[in-house]
Amino acid sequence: MRISELSEQSGVSIPTIKFYLREGLLAPGVLVTKTQSAYDETHLRRLRLVRALRDVAGLPIASIADVMAAVDSEAVSLLDLLGVTQVAVSGVSGDTSARGLRLAEEFIAELGWRVATESPLMRSLGRLLEELADRGIPITVAALGPWASAAHSVAAVEVAGITADMPRDQAAEIVAMGTPLFGELLSQLRLAAQESESRRRFGQ
Amino acid sequence: MRISELSEQSGVSIPTIKFYLREGLLAPGVLVTKTQSAYDETHLRRLRLVRALRDVAGLPIASIADVMAAVDSEAVSLLDLLGVTQVAVSGVSGDTSARGLRLAEEFIAELGWRVATESPLMRSLGRLLEELADRGIPITVAALGPWASAAHSVAAVEVAGITADMPRDQAAEIVAMGTPLFGELLSQLRLAAQESESRRRFGQ
Repeated sequence: MRISELSEQSGVSIPTIKFYLREGLLAPGVLVTKTQSAYDETHLRRLRLVRALRDVAGLPIASIADVMAAVDSEAVSLLDLLGVTQVAVSGVSGDTSARGLRLAEEFIAELGWRVATESPLMRSLGRLLEELADRGIPITVAALGPWASAAHSVAAVEVAGITADMPRDQAAEIVAMGTPLFGELLSQLRLAAQESESRRRFGQ
Repeated sequence: MRISELSEQSGVSIPTIKFYLREGLLAPGVLVTKTQSAYDETHLRRLRLVRALRDVAGLPIASIADVMAAVDSEAVSLLDLLGVTQVAVSGVSGDTSARGLRLAEEFIAELGWRVATESPLMRSLGRLLEELADRGIPITVAALGPWASAAHSVAAVEVAGITADMPRDQAAEIVAMGTPLFGELLSQLRLAAQESESRRRFGQ
C-alpha cells in the first residue's frame, strides 16, 4: 500500500509516519519508483504499537524506541519483550530497602507466583509492602489474599490474549494497550463497587 | 492527655497540632489551667484522619477541611461522608460526554450495581468506557466481567471494615487510608501477576 493508505488505515498522519521513518521507529517501505515506497501489514502493525505506546501509555519517543529495539532484537525472548513493554508503560521504577525487597520476595513466594527478584516490579512492590507493614498491616496471604486473588484473576485473562506464535509487535501492543487501559478500568470499577457496596449497606 | 502525649501517641509534632487547632481541623481541648488543655481519644482519632488525608492521600489543607466539615455535619449521612471522602482521596473529577455517561449508566445497571448517576465516579468511568468503546472493545458484562468481578470482590472486603456504629472520623479514615493504599496494592499485584502468568506461559 502507498503511504496515504497506510496513513488512512492506521489513523497516523503522513507527516507523523515520515517522522517515525526518520527516527527509525518504522522500517522503510519497498521502493517502487524513485519517489514512492510500498508498505504492508507489518508497517501497519508497527504503527499500531507506536500509537499504543504514545497515545495510550503516553511514552516519550526515547522510551518508544527502547521497546522497538526489544521487538526487533532476536536476542530478546518473548517473555523479556513483554516484561520490557510492561515496565515501560506502567512506569514502575526506583529502589526499595532490603527489608522491602525481602517482604516482596516472601509475599510473592507465599502466593506461589513467579516474579524475577531483579525485576523493577519487586522493588516497587517492596516499597508499598513496607509502607503497609509500617501501618500495622500483616504482609501475608491471609491478610492480603483478596487483593492478590483479584489481581491474579484479571492478569490471567489479560495474558491469555497473547500467544507465542503471534507477531512480536502485536504481542507488545496488547501489553502497551492493555496494561494502562485495563488497569484504569479495574481502578475505576473498584471505586464504583465501593460506592455500590456502601449504598447497599448504609443507604436508605 | 496533654498536648505532648497527644503528639507522642499520634506521631504528629506539637507545632503541627497547634497549626491544625488554628486552622480548625482539630477541636480545642478542655482548658485545665490558663495555659494547658486536656485532649482525649476524639482528638487522637481526628489526628489519625488528618494524617491519612495528608500523608497517604496527599490532600492539600483546603480539601482536608472539606472532609472534616462533612465529618462534623450531622446533615451529611454516613453514606455521603464515605462518598465525599472517597472522591476527595481518589481525585476523580472532570466531565464526560453524554455518550460516555450513558455507557457508564448502562454498564453499571447491567452489573446490578448501585451508583448515583450524578456521582463524579460515573463521569470518570464514562470517559474511560468511551475510550475503550472507541478502540473497539464492547462495553458489556460479557466482555468486561473479569475486571468488574475482581473490582467488586476487593471493594466488598474494603467496605466490610466500616460499620454504622463506629465514630464517623474513624469510618472516614478507613476510606482515606484504604482507597489509595489498597488501590495501589491491587495495581502493583496485577503487574506482578501478569509477569508471573507470562513466565508460566512463555518462560523456559
